[in-house]
Amino acid sequence: MSATARLSLAYERYFTGDAAQRALAVELYAQVAGEPLVCPHGHVDPRMFADPDYQFGSPTELLLIPDHYIFRMLYSQGITLERLGVPRTDGGAVESDHRKIWQTFADNYFLFRGTPTGMWLAHELHDVFGIRAKLNSANAQAIYDQIAEALSKPEFRPRAMFERFNISVLATTDAAHDTLDYHQQIAASDWKGRVVPTFRPDAAVNIDRPDWRTSIDELGKVCGFAITSYRKLIEALESRRAYFKSLGATATDHAALTPYTNELSESEVDAIFQRALAGKASEADATAFTGHMLMEMARMSCEDGLVMQFHPGSFRNHNEVIFNRFGFDKGCDIPLATEYTRNLRPLLNKYGNDARLSLILFTLDETTYARELAPIAGHYPAVKLGPPWWFHDSWNGMMRFRDQAMETAGLYNTTGFNDDTRAFPSIPARHDVARRADANWIASLVTRGIIDREDADEMIHDAAYRLAAKAYKF
Amino acid sequence: MSATARLSLAYERYFTGDAAQRALAVELYAQVAGEPLVCPHGHVDPRMFADPDYQFGSPTELLLIPDHYIFRMLYSQGITLERLGVPRTDGGAVESDHRKIWQTFADNYFLFRGTPTGMWLAHELHDVFGIRAKLNSANAQAIYDQIAEALSKPEFRPRAMFERFNISVLATTDAAHDTLDYHQQIAASDWKGRVVPTFRPDAAVNIDRPDWRTSIDELGKVCGFAITSYRKLIEALESRRAYFKSLGATATDHAALTPYTNELSESEVDAIFQRALAGKASEADATAFTGHMLMEMARMSCEDGLVMQFHPGSFRNHNEVIFNRFGFDKGCDIPLATEYTRNLRPLLNKYGNDARLSLILFTLDETTYARELAPIAGHYPAVKLGPPWWFHDSWNGMMRFRDQAMETAGLYNTTGFNDDTRAFPSIPARHDVARRADANWIASLVTRGIIDREDADEMIHDAAYRLAAKAYKF
Amino acid sequence: MSATARLSLAYERYFTGDAAQRALAVELYAQVAGEPLVCPHGHVDPRMFADPDYQFGSPTELLLIPDHYIFRMLYSQGITLERLGVPRTDGGAVESDHRKIWQTFADNYFLFRGTPTGMWLAHELHDVFGIRAKLNSANAQAIYDQIAEALSKPEFRPRAMFERFNISVLATTDAAHDTLDYHQQIAASDWKGRVVPTFRPDAAVNIDRPDWRTSIDELGKVCGFAITSYRKLIEALESRRAYFKSLGATATDHAALTPYTNELSESEVDAIFQRALAGKASEADATAFTGHMLMEMARMSCEDGLVMQFHPGSFRNHNEVIFNRFGFDKGCDIPLATEYTRNLRPLLNKYGNDARLSLILFTLDETTYARELAPIAGHYPAVKLGPPWWFHDSWNGMMRFRDQAMETAGLYNTTGFNDDTRAFPSIPARHDVARRADANWIASLVTRGIIDREDADEMIHDAAYRLAAKAYKF
Repeated sequence: MSATARLSLAYERYFTGDAAQRALAVELYAQVAGEPLVCPHGHVDPRMFADPDYQFGSPTELLLIPDHYIFRMLYSQGITLERLGVPRTDGGAVESDHRKIWQTFADNYFLFRGTPTGMWLAHELHDVFGIRAKLNSANAQAIYDQIAEALSKPEFRPRAMFERFNISVLATTDAAHDTLDYHQQIAASDWKGRVVPTFRPDAAVNIDRPDWRTSIDELGKVCGFAITSYRKLIEALESRRAYFKSLGATATDHAALTPYTNELSESEVDAIFQRALAGKASEADATAFTGHMLMEMARMSCEDGLVMQFHPGSFRNHNEVIFNRFGFDKGCDIPLATEYTRNLRPLLNKYGNDARLSLILFTLDETTYARELAPIAGHYPAVKLGPPWWFHDSWNGMMRFRDQAMETAGLYNTTGFNDDTRAFPSIPARHDVARRADANWIASLVTRGIIDREDADEMIHDAAYRLAAKAYKF
Repeated sequence: MSATARLSLAYERYFTGDAAQRALAVELYAQVAGEPLVCPHGHVDPRMFADPDYQFGSPTELLLIPDHYIFRMLYSQGITLERLGVPRTDGGAVESDHRKIWQTFADNYFLFRGTPTGMWLAHELHDVFGIRAKLNSANAQAIYDQIAEALSKPEFRPRAMFERFNISVLATTDAAHDTLDYHQQIAASDWKGRVVPTFRPDAAVNIDRPDWRTSIDELGKVCGFAITSYRKLIEALESRRAYFKSLGATATDHAALTPYTNELSESEVDAIFQRALAGKASEADATAFTGHMLMEMARMSCEDGLVMQFHPGSFRNHNEVIFNRFGFDKGCDIPLATEYTRNLRPLLNKYGNDARLSLILFTLDETTYARELAPIAGHYPAVKLGPPWWFHDSWNGMMRFRDQAMETAGLYNTTGFNDDTRAFPSIPARHDVARRADANWIASLVTRGIIDREDADEMIHDAAYRLAAKAYKF
Repeated sequence: MSATARLSLAYERYFTGDAAQRALAVELYAQVAGEPLVCPHGHVDPRMFADPDYQFGSPTELLLIPDHYIFRMLYSQGITLERLGVPRTDGGAVESDHRKIWQTFADNYFLFRGTPTGMWLAHELHDVFGIRAKLNSANAQAIYDQIAEALSKPEFRPRAMFERFNISVLATTDAAHDTLDYHQQIAASDWKGRVVPTFRPDAAVNIDRPDWRTSIDELGKVCGFAITSYRKLIEALESRRAYFKSLGATATDHAALTPYTNELSESEVDAIFQRALAGKASEADATAFTGHMLMEMARMSCEDGLVMQFHPGSFRNHNEVIFNRFGFDKGCDIPLATEYTRNLRPLLNKYGNDARLSLILFTLDETTYARELAPIAGHYPAVKLGPPWWFHDSWNGMMRFRDQAMETAGLYNTTGFNDDTRAFPSIPARHDVARRADANWIASLVTRGIIDREDADEMIHDAAYRLAAKAYKF
């Protein structure tokens, strides 16, 4: 068992129920607390593992500026992103004093009471950086110093932390045209950490994205031919999937405004593609095109065996003022009500009974857990459910997922946990919440006589890492 | 108290909360564990009670092949329905070795961990068949032998089990054109068990069903006149309702894709009916026709006093591959988001204040419990809420229903439990879950000081059988 | 600590969890049980505070006839509103024997088991009126006598109760054309109770309301000019807002069928206004007009600083039979599924980043807590979340709100509790439920190690009154 895991066992945090149930939850948790972390989906930058001497920046640069979970909450209370040092797309001035930004954060740390961000931060500061005091206005600078000092040490280089965190595999998320240079460097190095790419072609297949045309051009460039037709696009995507696979990828990932799927004829889809190239595609074109491309992606997955992840239902860049000033992923994506039963039917009728396909569904609309997703996963052989996503990647979110999806889908139509994070040092904290949540859920099944201890001992290992490893073919 | 009930009391299974709450839940449960089972809605085949010597087939035939809860889960993990012995509509070969199917089931029994099917099976094997070991790959054949031996005994004939289960009344579900021969035979026999039909005219009034035309022809045949117009259809339905009533029916049941209701003029509705007869009805026609027929069904219920059950929102036969190969009800029905507030308004404005109507609403969309159904049931005198349906007929599903609907609807606008099952031997297990869930809920109200013990003692009897008996006029 | 608060502490009612958690909940609750009640949103009639000698009528007049929570439940069980003394709009005869109505209520008191109305009534009868027995058929008249006797005493005059309840401020809800005479009388009196108006212009800006035209005429009358154009309407509203502000108003309130917002050009909006004046506005006109007026209201709030409350998604007067016979607010409003992400975007993009706006969102569609509202409030500086509204203003409703909204929105993007009641004597009971619910939630965070006790001690005061006072600028 790792030092981190031992530390975390020191108290029964998070667990619910009576003393007997909590005691059992601790026992179950203890079995997996030290097991390797399987990280099949996330947004960590592979660059940090390519260079053995890569060093993180200041505490503020590492922990605050890139974390939209943190700055969205501060922004919601009227603290401008400029004051938090978030870079503007026009290069305009933003706060550059990292100690001052850290102080602002510490002064407003109370905002995170009871939030998953608060739980992760507490764990991370305590277990990763050894901070023993609760952050506040008075001790903010001292704690900043402690973290800065830690970050200067060799054991806080990314590769060392990867090993200390006991990560068995980490998947990144990469655009279709990405040359995967960092992955190549990692593969070519003598470092044994397993960091694999994931094929995410959204920018190339969602013709309504502002960066679609650029993405198509980039894709043509890495493929060595101009993408002048739908047929060429298919060729390009197939070729890139093969390339990603060659560097260890086992999965693809797809986003869309809705899970609409529908197959078009080649002439219909090419006509849309041509309109898109000409800058004349309509919103209906975009929906039809994405719906068709999802079917194509399922077909390719049947053929090349890459697991297909699907993350629909996020209204990206909801706040135009912030988007125009700060760009993508600045915390202003808002979920939409999402319909799977009718929308996925064409795809499921064509590929859902195909044993070669593994389609992992995610949602931001929890109402679909019991109503649509669990019944679908509890029937179609190709479908599995991903863990609670984004806003729902939290203690309560996990409880709701277990409560609402497990009775119908069963544990074995799910795919374990993934941390989905770009905040590398938060990975142990995130897996810790998930493993405790699973121990809590499984313990409550035992104490209520729904399963026996023998089942529980299997389930906790399944939930903690086995299901993820199996679902993602690691 | 029955032997079954005594056995079940041996441990506190399912109950939540602290020791005091669980102890109270046990006390409340003990008051109703031995009370007769009221079964006002289900799909048990009446044939088994018509013949006093009816004998169940093999354990696999009885417990696995007809139970879509079981085979959907196995199918979701890639086990074909052919391997599970489910008959193909084209008569193609499927596994016929029942011991081999049972072994497949035992090998995959772990899939049911934490699911209601797992809970029912455990209870059924233990209490009905006296199996003391947990089913696994090694003991599968021995347990098969035990069940087979039990089934060969006289006390495992359906009528004997009906009595042993302490069933006070069992309602079946029957097509409008059903001649109810088995119900007649039961009525004519000297057996005292009460088995009554329920009038379910879906196949005759939903003009978009593949079997609509056959159903209309059959209906004409049993009525003795050709159904050549909407008016004739109304006559036929009224005549059949009277016939069902004469054999003890107290209720009707209706399904629809949505709860849309709207009254058409006689000429409008007849025009649709003529188009349907000519095979030229559109999807819009089907929606309008069903919406109108629901209003007519409410009118007839006002007149003949039959309780009207309504089960909207299931997308039937979602998986065409399976439907084409295996036919109806093979586990691939997926719920849809369902809207009641606007859709039911025409019906409720016309009949919702009428004391003669009793309309029991069901849903597969739990989001409507607190938002639409409880406010509707907490206002309209004609409306009551049915128990959690299908995927939601589970411990967590019942907790959510109590949590979300009771504060606004109140217990007394609900209709107790119904098992809705075609798996006859699972009936005690299903009522057991419901009675424990109710005891758990009511105990938590007492220990939190929301109600007193006197109220609790009434409520547990109301929830367990009184409300069902009253709502269904038994 | 007030006498009321002391009484309430006598037992641990409502709290969940194990003994340690409940003990902590009691400790937290005890800190705020005696704190003043901040009542920023409700429907109490200001008339009762204008006249120092105002006396309530009979127990039935005070507690039953005006309370649609009570009579909707009785009506749902077939007790006519006439039997309950609810006045008909046509002046037709209704039961006038208040003792008989009270007896009907007592005979059916069991209907409220487990409902918030039951909890409030129990608290109110016990703490406000000193009734020690549980109401039943036998003691109904004796309890009626006890309440009647209490009401005859000086300490049961509204001003005395206001002080006894320890209300620090009470906001009423008033039409745009209201002359606020009672508020003027209160302000002019030597009584120190703070009773402030809230500007609710629904009847003037929702052109599809049956009373719109009357409301516009009334509004013109109090403004001293005819409202013959959209521009005049804006002038009138701005002038009335200033008048409300001068009498202490800090907030406005708005209802709409959906949260649709969209800005129209002045000529477009005036054209709709002219069609509405001519009685020729369509349903689409009404939606567009309301959507535009919400944007205007946000603009005015930026300018005059009035907090903007928004309560969308209620289908008012769902039951036409009841509406035609008894008029507005007779318990037959049914919630609708509500969409915020797309609908509010125009308003949020224009004003959501403006520090001058404070927009408090309410919902009857709990599915939006985690999916839409918490992400919106956790990002846009202008947005805060109101407490659970109407049917969800209940113990379970509050638990769901905390469970589903807090992790993403954080406590500090919420606005504490408001009682939203027209039943003045129920105010302490309603705040008591809320304060206990908050203590319960916060205690569970502490015992699970998510926050520490220091945080908890702050949070309970924030939730109980500080957040409300701050959000409403008291």
